[in-house]
Amino acid sequence: MHPLETIMNPRSIAFYGASNNPLKMGSMQLANLLEGGFDGEVYPVHPTEGTVMGLPAYRSISEIGRPVDLAQLVLPTHLVPRIMEECGKAGVRRVIVISGGFKEVQDGNGRERERALQEIASRYGMRFLGPNCVGVMNRMRSLNTTTIPEPPFGGGIALASQSGAYTSMLNPYLRAQGMSICQTISVGNEADLDLVDCLEFFREQDEVRAVGLYVETVRRPERFIAVARETARRKPVVAVYVGGTEAGSRSSLSHTGAVTGPDELYDGLFRQAGVIRAEDIDHMLDLLWALSTQPLPPGPRIAVITNSGGPGTSLAYHLEKSGMRVPEFSPSLQKALRERTGPLTSVANPVDITFETNIAIYKEIAEEAFRYGEVDGAVIYGIFGAADMGTNLKKRLPELAPMEDAWDEQFLSFLPQLAQVPLEHRKPLLVMSFLGTASRTIRCLVENDLPVFTSASRCARALRGLLDYREIRDWLERVS
Amino acid sequence: MHPLETIMNPRSIAFYGASNNPLKMGSMQLANLLEGGFDGEVYPVHPTEGTVMGLPAYRSISEIGRPVDLAQLVLPTHLVPRIMEECGKAGVRRVIVISGGFKEVQDGNGRERERALQEIASRYGMRFLGPNCVGVMNRMRSLNTTTIPEPPFGGGIALASQSGAYTSMLNPYLRAQGMSICQTISVGNEADLDLVDCLEFFREQDEVRAVGLYVETVRRPERFIAVARETARRKPVVAVYVGGTEAGSRSSLSHTGAVTGPDELYDGLFRQAGVIRAEDIDHMLDLLWALSTQPLPPGPRIAVITNSGGPGTSLAYHLEKSGMRVPEFSPSLQKALRERTGPLTSVANPVDITFETNIAIYKEIAEEAFRYGEVDGAVIYGIFGAADMGTNLKKRLPELAPMEDAWDEQFLSFLPQLAQVPLEHRKPLLVMSFLGTASRTIRCLVENDLPVFTSASRCARALRGLLDYREIRDWLERVS
Repeated sequence: MHPLETIMNPRSIAFYGASNNPLKMGSMQLANLLEGGFDGEVYPVHPTEGTVMGLPAYRSISEIGRPVDLAQLVLPTHLVPRIMEECGKAGVRRVIVISGGFKEVQDGNGRERERALQEIASRYGMRFLGPNCVGVMNRMRSLNTTTIPEPPFGGGIALASQSGAYTSMLNPYLRAQGMSICQTISVGNEADLDLVDCLEFFREQDEVRAVGLYVETVRRPERFIAVARETARRKPVVAVYVGGTEAGSRSSLSHTGAVTGPDELYDGLFRQAGVIRAEDIDHMLDLLWALSTQPLPPGPRIAVITNSGGPGTSLAYHLEKSGMRVPEFSPSLQKALRERTGPLTSVANPVDITFETNIAIYKEIAEEAFRYGEVDGAVIYGIFGAADMGTNLKKRLPELAPMEDAWDEQFLSFLPQLAQVPLEHRKPLLVMSFLGTASRTIRCLVENDLPVFTSASRCARALRGLLDYREIRDWLERVS
Repeated sequence: MHPLETIMNPRSIAFYGASNNPLKMGSMQLANLLEGGFDGEVYPVHPTEGTVMGLPAYRSISEIGRPVDLAQLVLPTHLVPRIMEECGKAGVRRVIVISGGFKEVQDGNGRERERALQEIASRYGMRFLGPNCVGVMNRMRSLNTTTIPEPPFGGGIALASQSGAYTSMLNPYLRAQGMSICQTISVGNEADLDLVDCLEFFREQDEVRAVGLYVETVRRPERFIAVARETARRKPVVAVYVGGTEAGSRSSLSHTGAVTGPDELYDGLFRQAGVIRAEDIDHMLDLLWALSTQPLPPGPRIAVITNSGGPGTSLAYHLEKSGMRVPEFSPSLQKALRERTGPLTSVANPVDITFETNIAIYKEIAEEAFRYGEVDGAVIYGIFGAADMGTNLKKRLPELAPMEDAWDEQFLSFLPQLAQVPLEHRKPLLVMSFLGTASRTIRCLVENDLPVFTSASRCARALRGLLDYREIRDWLERVS
């Protein structure tokens, strides 16, 4: 059984460092664990409190008297070795060490303190995450041991990160985008379990459809390449690396004790490993969103369908700048499209339907283009029932309100059908809109697994990510 | 007086093409004009309706019997010339032609139809925007003639655009980011007034602090260079150009009849004009947000202040990749910072204060770094009172609720002080956060003119934009 299996699916957790003081990080984490719906046993351990957050507290691990699968430690640095030792003696075999103060601290003794933890763990056969991490999340178990409540659980994106913030603090960002997450692992200083272990673990998780890594260093490069390749044969792996500049490197050292390398080295490493390199976290999440929801394009030809010229032109430009193509449609396809659209429409690709109230037309055009076999994927820019367009009209023309509701209903029944198009035609479909998840129709799209991006360049790079992964998978098939 | 002066500040508007049918674009635009707080006269003109949206409707412009500063036409293409002619006869000297169907249509007669408009206008000494545009917005007059209601009015960003969507449809995006807008002009096909006129106009507007352009073609390159340079001496100009690929070019032609040129040509044009080129609209808005709110950095050295290692390392990396520097602080500055922070803090730059409840420390560190003269600007990544961290804690520890309110109040009184730092030290300060405007503290920051970005790369490119504009201004001083 993989060592992360029990950490991500514990039946029981001993929790150190939570109290009834809400200003402690441990208290925040325990509250999230308890309120998040986790169905296992939770045992707070505290030296003086009788109860912690309404649960009976235990003075020590030995008092619990029942088997403990996992211990999470949010303790002052100097207490960590003794508690690790006690856990080891009590038969706990998996630990998450949240506490910092180890090899990331340049006081001369940090590395030694970390080696002491490794020694204790190896003596008892314990495996652990951290130190200097923020915990884990697993949607399948409603498990959340991090500082941030209410993860936007869903979908197929898993993250493993040498930064805690990049597994949990980004929850509000994910939610605002309409993205979701299914598993996250914060690996901290990687004194034991590292990103390679996470890749191995995620590879075997059926619900994980795309894996993202935040990397300041790869501690086992050869093993990383082998395991990442094996993972990338089955699901896409995307990574961000930020160690490759002078200050980036200095910062990595003081953050997780990471020894970094030049950018080009990591470019080569990721290339050999079949890993797509993203520029930054937001870019990585865009790629993962598309990769975890959309089929791969058979080639680089993309249809652009829009009701507005600027976004259409921008999409055409950015797709071509990204190395894809927006081919002019054949006369026969143009003729077929013209039959469905108005005289002001341009149908060459981009297809610009201009001001149009027949919402089904987006779907019809995409399907026609797919049927003709002239494109390998599509992007739609549309207003999509922008309810706010009626805000002022309703004040002047009250009869609009019921029409608007009817229109909204029409949209909400149409959009799930639109979301079927990529599945039926096995070609990706992305949406560009300025509306965002404040809009009910955008929420409907993202709930139906159609990613929605706010700019042409974001759409283009997400589609490029799909094409990149297709090429990586083809290459991995050839070299196997 | 500049020809746009009356278009942006009309005392009276005749409105063609609005009716009591809410599905018409003209009706949407009139509703926005009437409900937006505009204090001038509005005269709907309609051939059959007695009233339009509660206002008396006029059969023709001549029936109005009072002076009309501006006419907006949202009519079928074939009616536009006749109505232009009637407006000219009635003494109307400014027109916005929303209607499409002119040189963007490749039916052989589009260019001719557009020339006919030009001829009528020149006969009566009329100046006009469009055809094929969406109207204008001006915060100073609460003027909004576009299709999208409730612009996020505020700040000092003005946009002129050959795409209508990129002046109005992006309102929900601006609002979600916490950005605002003070003036927008959609120029459409530019049969008369063009981007050059907009630059001239914005240059003289005191409330406009930064100008953004969406460009598919520059129709008067020499004049553009001269006027943009003159504008850039006084305020920054940022442009997006998307005509420079095969499909981008095809799309521009059918969108606004624009004849495009290669990317490199426009790179050179913008460089000569003192215009910063942005990659896409979202990038342009990031630059404009920083440029319209922050002082310019005297040089490329940036302080990174964070409570989390991943974002700090990412900021350091992206700043350096953008050509800026994150210099290691001098021993004496490090000593001074150490006195204010805890033992786990790293103070070399990035400064990582880790888990910390003293909120004032961000300001103290930034000011200390500025006072030592070791940096020219700063970026802060912080949780900033992330209210949602207490969501679950409150359920377990109800005594937290009043503490949290007190903490929130503390933040809301501190953040405006933080926003004073760039003004007092004349060095830019940006914020990175995943929270977004759903958070009260982030709303407080942006209301106090501190831009907040959701990723390290967005922060870095915004700071790079400030430095670029400083270099452009220095260059323009030398060549004048």
